[in-house]
Amino acid sequence: MKKYTPSVAAALDLPADAELLSIVRLRFADGQPLALMRNWLPPAYHGITLKDLEASGLYAVLRSRGTRPVVAAQSIGARPPTASERRHLRLRPAEPVLTMTRTAFDSAGRAVEHGDHCYRAQDYTIEVLVDQR
Amino acid sequence: MKKYTPSVAAALDLPADAELLSIVRLRFADGQPLALMRNWLPPAYHGITLKDLEASGLYAVLRSRGTRPVVAAQSIGARPPTASERRHLRLRPAEPVLTMTRTAFDSAGRAVEHGDHCYRAQDYTIEVLVDQR
Repeated sequence: MKKYTPSVAAALDLPADAELLSIVRLRFADGQPLALMRNWLPPAYHGITLKDLEASGLYAVLRSRGTRPVVAAQSIGARPPTASERRHLRLRPAEPVLTMTRTAFDSAGRAVEHGDHCYRAQDYTIEVLVDQR
Repeated sequence: MKKYTPSVAAALDLPADAELLSIVRLRFADGQPLALMRNWLPPAYHGITLKDLEASGLYAVLRSRGTRPVVAAQSIGARPPTASERRHLRLRPAEPVLTMTRTAFDSAGRAVEHGDHCYRAQDYTIEVLVDQR
């Protein structure tokens, strides 16, 4: 689960050769694939195991280790899927994916995780409440 | 520019037969179409003219009339474009649109506008900062 990924390391504010924990999950809803979720975490989280992630979500695992991501910079877009994404998400030709790239930070401003997720667009929307009061 | 649109009226918390101001704009960036923007406004804003909108953005026009949208509920998704959207946004086959549906409210909680926008996905992402501190 560990890989060198220089551009992701930069997003996490780590040196290019930092050894990151790489997690890939396929999320199902009602027996159908909904999202392909890729996450990378700093070396401090190498102890997280597949077993931890099978038992609960990534953020619950982080919280159980005393980390609380509280700020996230998200970039939301759309594109045709790659061949692999099309296969995993069981998409028909011309069906796009909704994408969300995110870096999350704890209250001290430390980058906690970087995510690159794609969703079956026909089954998923991202809801955002903007409050400028 | 006025139309009956019952589902939009509901989003604006108005009766189904409310006469809404309907605005359709094609936004360009660097000489290329970027977004097809559809907005609906309550009867109070019927005085807004094409000339107002040519001179400045919709939110600037609203502010000049004493309205400040401060809360917005957005739903962000992706889909293949309609034939008309494909033509207006000059999309090639298989290129999706990024969509954003929004209802905006003023500080008193009154719905001010409902928008249904679609963007050339290859040229546009929606940036969101989530802050739960």
